[in-house]
Amino acid sequence: MQDQNQQAYDRGTSIFSPDGRLYQVEYAREAIKRGTASVGVRTADGVVLAADRQVRSPLVEEESIEKLHRIDDHIAVASAGHVADARQLVDFAREQAQVNKLRYDEPIGVESLAKEVTDYIQRYTQSGGVRPFGVALAIGGVDPDGTPKLFETDPSGTPYEWKATAIGGNREALQSFLEDEYRPEMDLDSGVALALETIAQGEDDEAVDPQAAEVTVIDTETHRVRSLDPDEIASHLDELDGGETDE
Amino acid sequence: MQDQNQQAYDRGTSIFSPDGRLYQVEYAREAIKRGTASVGVRTADGVVLAADRQVRSPLVEEESIEKLHRIDDHIAVASAGHVADARQLVDFAREQAQVNKLRYDEPIGVESLAKEVTDYIQRYTQSGGVRPFGVALAIGGVDPDGTPKLFETDPSGTPYEWKATAIGGNREALQSFLEDEYRPEMDLDSGVALALETIAQGEDDEAVDPQAAEVTVIDTETHRVRSLDPDEIASHLDELDGGETDE
Amino acid sequence: MQDQNQQAYDRGTSIFSPDGRLYQVEYAREAIKRGTASVGVRTADGVVLAADRQVRSPLVEEESIEKLHRIDDHIAVASAGHVADARQLVDFAREQAQVNKLRYDEPIGVESLAKEVTDYIQRYTQSGGVRPFGVALAIGGVDPDGTPKLFETDPSGTPYEWKATAIGGNREALQSFLEDEYRPEMDLDSGVALALETIAQGEDDEAVDPQAAEVTVIDTETHRVRSLDPDEIASHLDELDGGETDE
Amino acid sequence: MQDQNQQAYDRGTSIFSPDGRLYQVEYAREAIKRGTASVGVRTADGVVLAADRQVRSPLVEEESIEKLHRIDDHIAVASAGHVADARQLVDFAREQAQVNKLRYDEPIGVESLAKEVTDYIQRYTQSGGVRPFGVALAIGGVDPDGTPKLFETDPSGTPYEWKATAIGGNREALQSFLEDEYRPEMDLDSGVALALETIAQGEDDEAVDPQAAEVTVIDTETHRVRSLDPDEIASHLDELDGGETDE
Amino acid sequence: MQDQNQQAYDRGTSIFSPDGRLYQVEYAREAIKRGTASVGVRTADGVVLAADRQVRSPLVEEESIEKLHRIDDHIAVASAGHVADARQLVDFAREQAQVNKLRYDEPIGVESLAKEVTDYIQRYTQSGGVRPFGVALAIGGVDPDGTPKLFETDPSGTPYEWKATAIGGNREALQSFLEDEYRPEMDLDSGVALALETIAQGEDDEAVDPQAAEVTVIDTETHRVRSLDPDEIASHLDELDGGETDE
Amino acid sequence: MQDQNQQAYDRGTSIFSPDGRLYQVEYAREAIKRGTASVGVRTADGVVLAADRQVRSPLVEEESIEKLHRIDDHIAVASAGHVADARQLVDFAREQAQVNKLRYDEPIGVESLAKEVTDYIQRYTQSGGVRPFGVALAIGGVDPDGTPKLFETDPSGTPYEWKATAIGGNREALQSFLEDEYRPEMDLDSGVALALETIAQGEDDEAVDPQAAEVTVIDTETHRVRSLDPDEIASHLDELDGGETDE
Amino acid sequence: MQDQNQQAYDRGTSIFSPDGRLYQVEYAREAIKRGTASVGVRTADGVVLAADRQVRSPLVEEESIEKLHRIDDHIAVASAGHVADARQLVDFAREQAQVNKLRYDEPIGVESLAKEVTDYIQRYTQSGGVRPFGVALAIGGVDPDGTPKLFETDPSGTPYEWKATAIGGNREALQSFLEDEYRPEMDLDSGVALALETIAQGEDDEAVDPQAAEVTVIDTETHRVRSLDPDEIASHLDELDGGETDE
Repeated sequence: MQDQNQQAYDRGTSIFSPDGRLYQVEYAREAIKRGTASVGVRTADGVVLAADRQVRSPLVEEESIEKLHRIDDHIAVASAGHVADARQLVDFAREQAQVNKLRYDEPIGVESLAKEVTDYIQRYTQSGGVRPFGVALAIGGVDPDGTPKLFETDPSGTPYEWKATAIGGNREALQSFLEDEYRPEMDLDSGVALALETIAQGEDDEAVDPQAAEVTVIDTETHRVRSLDPDEIASHLDELDGGETDE
Repeated sequence: MQDQNQQAYDRGTSIFSPDGRLYQVEYAREAIKRGTASVGVRTADGVVLAADRQVRSPLVEEESIEKLHRIDDHIAVASAGHVADARQLVDFAREQAQVNKLRYDEPIGVESLAKEVTDYIQRYTQSGGVRPFGVALAIGGVDPDGTPKLFETDPSGTPYEWKATAIGGNREALQSFLEDEYRPEMDLDSGVALALETIAQGEDDEAVDPQAAEVTVIDTETHRVRSLDPDEIASHLDELDGGETDE
Repeated sequence: MQDQNQQAYDRGTSIFSPDGRLYQVEYAREAIKRGTASVGVRTADGVVLAADRQVRSPLVEEESIEKLHRIDDHIAVASAGHVADARQLVDFAREQAQVNKLRYDEPIGVESLAKEVTDYIQRYTQSGGVRPFGVALAIGGVDPDGTPKLFETDPSGTPYEWKATAIGGNREALQSFLEDEYRPEMDLDSGVALALETIAQGEDDEAVDPQAAEVTVIDTETHRVRSLDPDEIASHLDELDGGETDE
Repeated sequence: MQDQNQQAYDRGTSIFSPDGRLYQVEYAREAIKRGTASVGVRTADGVVLAADRQVRSPLVEEESIEKLHRIDDHIAVASAGHVADARQLVDFAREQAQVNKLRYDEPIGVESLAKEVTDYIQRYTQSGGVRPFGVALAIGGVDPDGTPKLFETDPSGTPYEWKATAIGGNREALQSFLEDEYRPEMDLDSGVALALETIAQGEDDEAVDPQAAEVTVIDTETHRVRSLDPDEIASHLDELDGGETDE
Repeated sequence: MQDQNQQAYDRGTSIFSPDGRLYQVEYAREAIKRGTASVGVRTADGVVLAADRQVRSPLVEEESIEKLHRIDDHIAVASAGHVADARQLVDFAREQAQVNKLRYDEPIGVESLAKEVTDYIQRYTQSGGVRPFGVALAIGGVDPDGTPKLFETDPSGTPYEWKATAIGGNREALQSFLEDEYRPEMDLDSGVALALETIAQGEDDEAVDPQAAEVTVIDTETHRVRSLDPDEIASHLDELDGGETDE
Repeated sequence: MQDQNQQAYDRGTSIFSPDGRLYQVEYAREAIKRGTASVGVRTADGVVLAADRQVRSPLVEEESIEKLHRIDDHIAVASAGHVADARQLVDFAREQAQVNKLRYDEPIGVESLAKEVTDYIQRYTQSGGVRPFGVALAIGGVDPDGTPKLFETDPSGTPYEWKATAIGGNREALQSFLEDEYRPEMDLDSGVALALETIAQGEDDEAVDPQAAEVTVIDTETHRVRSLDPDEIASHLDELDGGETDE
Repeated sequence: MQDQNQQAYDRGTSIFSPDGRLYQVEYAREAIKRGTASVGVRTADGVVLAADRQVRSPLVEEESIEKLHRIDDHIAVASAGHVADARQLVDFAREQAQVNKLRYDEPIGVESLAKEVTDYIQRYTQSGGVRPFGVALAIGGVDPDGTPKLFETDPSGTPYEWKATAIGGNREALQSFLEDEYRPEMDLDSGVALALETIAQGEDDEAVDPQAAEVTVIDTETHRVRSLDPDEIASHLDELDGGETDE
């Protein structure tokens, strides 16, 4: 239970607590932990984003539970946390990508996009009358020069660049799994496998349903966002089960 | 009874509670539960929206208790919750449909419309000085390419796509009935029957008055919103009673 | 007496209580109950609006206590509740009627007007810094196609269509009287009689002073708002007394 | 002494109390009671406005304590309550009168003016960040068609039409005196006498000082606002004393 | 000591207390009492404004402690209370005088100016987010037709016209001295004497230092604001001492 | 320790306390006392501004601790209190000086500038949502006609003109030293000496470090702001030590 | 633990506490202490900025933890504290540098830039509805005339010029180390060494990882910001270890 002093500072976005914390930003991070996890893995030949859809009912169209969003031909994001907030940031990111193309006649860089998004997020932490965004994004893509990149945005508006990361519920466990298993020399296929394996760590039975999983890759050859269909995901999962027994 | 801590965070729309919740959004969901249910069913050849009007007095004109609203030739919505809030969203949806037609010279897609509406709803959950919308919508229609679609919007501004869904009071029970009875291969007539049957589950005597029921269908052939008149509804209900005895 | 929990949610228009209620809207309904009642009756050949003026002093000009207001040639409203708030809505309704005439070159429909007014009312329930309107309106008129219509607006901004209705103090009793006595086949004269009889139910001695009563009719032949003068009202009342003994 | 519950609702203009009251409007009425009374009397051949100046010191210029204000050639107002607030409404009324003359090329009607003023007052009772006007006005004048008219505005923004009325401190007593003494057939001179006599009821010694009294008449012949000079007032008062002994 | 109930209503400018008072306006009057007094005296041939500068240190330039301000050729004001607030009103008054000259090509009347200033002051008592002006002004001047005039403004925004008045600390005592000593037939010189004598009543030793005193006169012949230099003031004071012994 | 009543009024800039005080303005004065003192001395042939830099570390560039600021060729200011606030006022003053030059084609007068600055300061004491400036300025300069002038601004927005003054910490002691030592007939050199001597009173060892001291003079001959370099200051200080022993 | 009185004043940016403090600014300083330290050292032939990246995970791309930012060809900043806030100020600084180049056709001076940034920071401490920036910057660069300069900005908006300084966590210790070790005659290489050595004082093992360290220099010859690569940093660190044993 929190004490009296904390309550004195945690109900307005635009104030610091005596020890220099922004409580509303910290609570927004709690909103992210309430969602399922998404995973991003960067390999030499591309970036993988993966997520497991949390389906409430067999009548829900699984494809409509979008946790991966295409931002531009060469960039996609995975989200974790407040779905409606994620949609706002996705819309903002798409606009920024279009603006960049119109203004400079070339695709936006992944880092530039990540920084536009985090600057936008930061503004919701410094003014009164609004709350922070309750969502984290993993932004993956291939730069115009062919470099694969993976960034994370958090509710404070700080951008982080990762080799591989997990956002959302169970983050600590998944992140630690990634730290153990990630190899810089991985190719894109191994990246997909690692992403799915990491997602599986967050499931109760450590198994992923190919229908419920979402995987998107952006490879350094085509520079294109491509979503894997359930069959591709299933075949990756099969391989994984075979592979797992080897370990 | 709620405790002191909850009260500290639930009176401003733009703040998170320490565990990452937005209480005003959750209370808006309670407002939806106070209304009668509406049902949407998607079949191969069209979408059905149905509702039972809650008539307070024999002197009220039943037709004026609109829970189903035509948005465009090919899209309609069913609402549950705060009636006046629903009207605002219906007006907004109609404007978006018109704007899309003017701008792109073609009817708006059902998913596009659902996302415009949910983005609009989200903004009422992140800024101070306003409250969330106390209403859920089931948005049904046929896309320009002939695909039938059914979406739900909730007070957080999240869009969900459904095969069949119930919104409003008694949702859990009705939704569970739908999960048992829905068959993907249903035709539009069976969809109407299922929708009426589901509505009946919410009534005390499990019977629906054809005068009080409202049913709207959008079929994949005509791409047109059509409201069933009481006679049509009555004949569906008769069939249903016959059918029910078979089970 | 209300409890602590209610007080926590009832002082801001733009928040929901934990059970999904908008207390300020409910309190605005109390403001309406503090006023005298107005009655609307729809008959096959027109709509009747009637009210009894609450005169505080013999020196007040009775005619100045307007509870019935002409909106356009073919529409009038009866109000109950906060008089000054009613005047704002009446002004708004008149503007909408004029705008419609200028824009479409034809009189506004009664339902269209009712919905413009209720949309306006709703906005005062969702934003901070304002209070809801403490008034209910009965909007009666004849549509351009000759159909008589009767609508009610409440402080939440919900429109209801009625065959006959009472708004203001004593509503439940008067409404129940209307439910017993209303006959769909009534002509306009019987409608006036029923309206006056209903008003009388709200008086201590169940008698109406022809000087204090206000009656307005809009008939389907002329499509014109017409106020009855005291003599006409008196003759209706006389008839009523005669008629009453017959029952 | 007021209780806890009242304090919960009386410090914001834009909220209703649970029983549907607007406390700030009621407190503004208290501000009016703190001032001296003004009186208006309507007779067949004109309207009389009268007031007694409350002079704090022999060094104050009595004429500067204006409680009667000319609005246009044919309309004047008497005020009671917060003097500075009255000046704002007087300025607003003068502007409205000028605007009407420019727009329609004829003098504004007394009722039209009263309603413009009350609509303006109402807006200060529905929005946050402002307080209601702490003043009542008696608006008297002669309509373009020669009809004498007398209106009252209160802090809620409700207009009342009167044959004769008193506003300000001691209102109940003075109003009751007017009810006893007013005769509809009175001529303007008798109206002046009645107004002065009523004012005298509010004085400790029931006598009016001709220097301190202010009387304005608007007669149906000239349609002009005319202020009586102290001699005229004195002669009316003398007559009154003579007349009084006759009763 | 004030009680709990008062505190509930005295911290917002835009609300009334249950007994109809505006506490912030009353507290602004207290701010005026904290300053030294200024005096205005109107005589047949002009107006006198006088003040005693409260000098905190011998190093302060006495002339810089301005309590008398020239507004236009023919109007000056004396202030009492919050110095910085006074400067705002003086600036506003100067602008109004210039605007009037440009618009009507003649000097502004003293009463017109006083009313412009009080209307401006009133607005700071009715809106939230601002406080009232903590200052009183004595506005003296000669009208274009040669009439000498003396007005007072207070924090509520009420204008008063005076023959002679004192504003600021010790007001009651000085005002009562003025009431005893003022003679309507006084000439301008006697007016200066009376003003200085009144000022002296507010001093501990009932003596005025000619260096510290400020006197401004506007006479009906020249219509010009003229400040007396210390020698003139000293000679008036000498005369006064002589005169005093005669009494 | 302050009591409960004070706390009720001291947290909003735009309200008066019951005894007519503006607490936030008084607290801003406390912010000034927390800074080191600055001194201004006006002599017949110019104005001296002096300050002692409070250096926190030997690594701080002493020259960067600016307490004296050039506003225009002929005007400079010394500040005491909140450094960042001082910079805002210095920027504002510079703009005003430029505007004056552009508009009237001549340098701004010292008093005009002081009043522009104090009017600007006052506005931060009357509106909500801002705090007063926590800084005092000594504004010194030579008017276009050659008159040396020295003004002080305080957080209430009141301008004072001085022969010599100290602002900031220890003000009372330094001011009293100035009152003892100031001679109106002083020349500029003696003014510099007096300013440095006064500054020394505020030091623990009553000695001034020539490197840490800042001295600016504006003489009536050149009308130019000139900063003394450490050598000049040192030589003044030497003279002072010599002189001191004489006393 | 803080007491009741402090809490009364520390939750709004725009108010002073009774002792003249701005608590929100002081809490923002606490936010800075929560970050790792950055160091700036000015030498005769250039400025050095250095920082140690706080890497949370081996999967984080170290280069993405930017604590040093290039502002223009000739100016860079080191930040400490809230990362997202730092990015806002960096963006603002870059814009100012561009604006200056466009407007004056020459690079902005280091001091000018520092003052633009601090003026911007100050505004976030005087208005309501925003919070101060929780970040300190060390701004280093070479002026167009070849002078190396080093400034610090703090959350109050005060600019300081330094020979060498540390910002962020452990500031006191690092600053004191700098005071002991700094020599004005140092060349740029020694400056880099001192900066790295100072950074090491803040590490637990007093050792710096060349991969994790960031060093940027701006030399007086090229006037160009240059980032040292890990090899250069490593060689400096090696030298340092050798050098250290000599001491």
